[in-house]
Amino acid sequence: MRMETGVCVLHLFCTPGKNADRDAVKAAVKAAEEQECQVVTAAILGHKGDIAIMALGPDVQALRRLQTGLQQAGLRVVDSYLSITEVSEYAKGMPEEALQARLYPQLPPPDKPAFCFYPMSKRREAHANWYATPFEERRDMMMEHGGSGRKFAGKIVQLVTGSTGLDDYEWGVTLFGVNLEVIKDVVYTLRYDKGSALYGDFGRFYVGYLAYIDDVI
Amino acid sequence: MRMETGVCVLHLFCTPGKNADRDAVKAAVKAAEEQECQVVTAAILGHKGDIAIMALGPDVQALRRLQTGLQQAGLRVVDSYLSITEVSEYAKGMPEEALQARLYPQLPPPDKPAFCFYPMSKRREAHANWYATPFEERRDMMMEHGGSGRKFAGKIVQLVTGSTGLDDYEWGVTLFGVNLEVIKDVVYTLRYDKGSALYGDFGRFYVGYLAYIDDVI
Amino acid sequence: MRMETGVCVLHLFCTPGKNADRDAVKAAVKAAEEQECQVVTAAILGHKGDIAIMALGPDVQALRRLQTGLQQAGLRVVDSYLSITEVSEYAKGMPEEALQARLYPQLPPPDKPAFCFYPMSKRREAHANWYATPFEERRDMMMEHGGSGRKFAGKIVQLVTGSTGLDDYEWGVTLFGVNLEVIKDVVYTLRYDKGSALYGDFGRFYVGYLAYIDDVI
Amino acid sequence: MRMETGVCVLHLFCTPGKNADRDAVKAAVKAAEEQECQVVTAAILGHKGDIAIMALGPDVQALRRLQTGLQQAGLRVVDSYLSITEVSEYAKGMPEEALQARLYPQLPPPDKPAFCFYPMSKRREAHANWYATPFEERRDMMMEHGGSGRKFAGKIVQLVTGSTGLDDYEWGVTLFGVNLEVIKDVVYTLRYDKGSALYGDFGRFYVGYLAYIDDVI
Amino acid sequence: MRMETGVCVLHLFCTPGKNADRDAVKAAVKAAEEQECQVVTAAILGHKGDIAIMALGPDVQALRRLQTGLQQAGLRVVDSYLSITEVSEYAKGMPEEALQARLYPQLPPPDKPAFCFYPMSKRREAHANWYATPFEERRDMMMEHGGSGRKFAGKIVQLVTGSTGLDDYEWGVTLFGVNLEVIKDVVYTLRYDKGSALYGDFGRFYVGYLAYIDDVI
Repeated sequence: MRMETGVCVLHLFCTPGKNADRDAVKAAVKAAEEQECQVVTAAILGHKGDIAIMALGPDVQALRRLQTGLQQAGLRVVDSYLSITEVSEYAKGMPEEALQARLYPQLPPPDKPAFCFYPMSKRREAHANWYATPFEERRDMMMEHGGSGRKFAGKIVQLVTGSTGLDDYEWGVTLFGVNLEVIKDVVYTLRYDKGSALYGDFGRFYVGYLAYIDDVI
Repeated sequence: MRMETGVCVLHLFCTPGKNADRDAVKAAVKAAEEQECQVVTAAILGHKGDIAIMALGPDVQALRRLQTGLQQAGLRVVDSYLSITEVSEYAKGMPEEALQARLYPQLPPPDKPAFCFYPMSKRREAHANWYATPFEERRDMMMEHGGSGRKFAGKIVQLVTGSTGLDDYEWGVTLFGVNLEVIKDVVYTLRYDKGSALYGDFGRFYVGYLAYIDDVI
Repeated sequence: MRMETGVCVLHLFCTPGKNADRDAVKAAVKAAEEQECQVVTAAILGHKGDIAIMALGPDVQALRRLQTGLQQAGLRVVDSYLSITEVSEYAKGMPEEALQARLYPQLPPPDKPAFCFYPMSKRREAHANWYATPFEERRDMMMEHGGSGRKFAGKIVQLVTGSTGLDDYEWGVTLFGVNLEVIKDVVYTLRYDKGSALYGDFGRFYVGYLAYIDDVI
Repeated sequence: MRMETGVCVLHLFCTPGKNADRDAVKAAVKAAEEQECQVVTAAILGHKGDIAIMALGPDVQALRRLQTGLQQAGLRVVDSYLSITEVSEYAKGMPEEALQARLYPQLPPPDKPAFCFYPMSKRREAHANWYATPFEERRDMMMEHGGSGRKFAGKIVQLVTGSTGLDDYEWGVTLFGVNLEVIKDVVYTLRYDKGSALYGDFGRFYVGYLAYIDDVI
Repeated sequence: MRMETGVCVLHLFCTPGKNADRDAVKAAVKAAEEQECQVVTAAILGHKGDIAIMALGPDVQALRRLQTGLQQAGLRVVDSYLSITEVSEYAKGMPEEALQARLYPQLPPPDKPAFCFYPMSKRREAHANWYATPFEERRDMMMEHGGSGRKFAGKIVQLVTGSTGLDDYEWGVTLFGVNLEVIKDVVYTLRYDKGSALYGDFGRFYVGYLAYIDDVI
């Protein structure tokens, strides 16, 4: 099963089992890369997982084969996130090049070793129901949000991928930053935007730094 | 114990144990099929499970025997959902053929390889209590919802099965789509319907693609 | 430690371990029955448990010995519920025979193979606080609820046992039905009663069918 | 590290591992008792734990040594609660003897074999924020609560210990009762008090009966 | 990957596995200390973990190497928290020395054997949305809060580190106190401050006392 537009994105958060086989892990990653996948690997700090393996590609079955290969190599997949690249309804008028960068991102960006992933949804509460809010108001909040983010241009690269119907939150957010401070600064700053302060619901945060397989198993 | 009307639906989300026996899994599925069960199998992406086995049939004990057979074949059942087919109170006037399709669905539909399952309930909150809302209002919201869904006709087949009193949510939703994009599109689009925006509560999403046992163990 | 009035009710939801010993399970059940316990066993569908063992009796230590016996026979107790039979404050004026049936139920009822258990509490929210509602209003809601339930007479037998201070919810509800459809119908229908729609909070649902030990291990 | 005033209270909820050593458990308890600790043991019903070991003493390290000793003897500590004895701000004017009984309780009380533990907090919600309520109102609610409890004098002994900053709830409540019925009656009755109905948030309930180590392993 | 300003703080809550190697644990700690890390160790009471290892340093990879070293030495990391030191926006005008103490704390402080850690966030609810509150109001609440805390000067040392975008809550709070009573007193007292009563959301509490590796494995 292939994507028609954009690519499928699978974040796997893993911990090595007793008999984890580094060469088999590398072979699984290499096989995925030969099947049109990009694979980004990061060391994660804390108990939630030791390694993040983020894979993107148009062939959904190749992503599943990667997961199977990693499991057979002795990694336990302890958390994950499934999403697809998208051009949001608020970004329809962007230049073609920007649209292509959203649908077909080239990762990881250069000189951004800090890695962060978290899922998020928009609230549907009595006083703050995103899905009962008119398009124009939502668009304005998204534009404010985009403006806040652009102040971090050069320090942060952000990829927001859609997951409504695909996983337990509605979007996945992957950040690449020059260091941990800027990861904290951007997420903290954006939390004061109306779209986040009133409507944002955030899941678990996975944070670490880009590293090759050799460095994380 | 048999169903009098409609069929019982058991979704099993599994992960293979160390000694999973592919032949024994296939034998358990075959035995269920010989006891009036339909069995749909899918590969799932991510940590929540590796395989979905969805079984439907009038004989509840045959479904339980299938589960036991799969467990004895070395699959660990890590999540599940129990529901039954139903004709909702909003669909009573449908043509007989449509009613039969709801009570006795033939699965999987052709040319819809993408698979998605999630459970859902209707909220009982101060500002949005489905069960304290008059029938006419509920019916109108369900009709809006049906209309939104029909825009995806040909791309999505949806089966909504009832589970109030049978499992932790009130309905199970199984989607078969032409690809992952359309799964995301339909769930995202319907979330703006009043019945979802205000009243919908959604559980975990299991997503992958249809595959034979040989491809997933 | 014995009950002075009524009986103690222990629901144990179990899954057989690798070395589960069917004869030892049966011996533990038999020992409990010889210590004034009634023991009802059911096969459960899905990942939450494989077997339900519901035991009732006046001797609390006999119930604990049953649990220990089952554990030593190789069953893992993965969930449970502790409650006691009671005559609620809304049922004080009932005929003596009906009161005795509540305090000392004879289980299982005949010809009701479908089994369902779930715990529930009454909400204490801003707009719907059961414990801040006058007795007369609560009694009227309970009477409406009782009337809705009586429409299912002959198809459902219900046992509501009290667990405030004994387990994590305030009541345990055990249903015996002629089939799964009627279990769904009664719980769905009662959800529209004011006492459930506004005040009910429901826990996990365990559903299956009555079966002897030989059929479930 | 020692307490200056009152004693530290550690509730450990345990399940015996495969190689649990009864003599080693007893030796660990004895060692704690020789280090100024009181140790109360109870059999618990249900899956949440098999044994409760409640230890009180002025020497915090002695409590930790008890925990280590129990773990080394083969008990798995599956839940726990850490609190300290206190004289609440609403009880300051009590006679010296009553204050001493709160700070230095002698446990278990005689002829109260039923055992119950649960943690609780006071709500901080829009319509019911205990910490934004004037002292006088809080004191009046606590006095109503105390009056309700005193109706169970002779049947129940209650110990409320403080845990704000020490564990996940704000208080731990330990009840000793003449039987299970009175445990249910007191907790159910007090739930109608304003301080509980509007402000109480309750955690998990652990219930069983006092028993020696020999009876529970 | 290094911090540009301040240090990265990794709290690891561990439990020793069957083959935990005390010397290897000590070697991992020593290696971290040689890579600019401060390492504080504490014994924790209760089931949530046996040992807390809090490490601070400018080299994020050295912290990850410490975690890997501890895992390889046989400790299971069962919970954790990732944060960084910061000067909050409400503290900008503080004297340089105080700012340095926040960014580069020297731990543990003398004569404060009691240890406590918990994460916290500020609420974003209808009636109490910290991120939709004007800066001046937030600053006033923070000043009230600081004043309440200062009454415990000499008895408590507090370190608040920022984790928005880095972990699941927005701040981590580490307390060192002269005993457990003062830990409880300060957290209880501050809960009545408006900033906590209305806006505070608290995670799990880990409490124990400072101890060397030799005393906790």
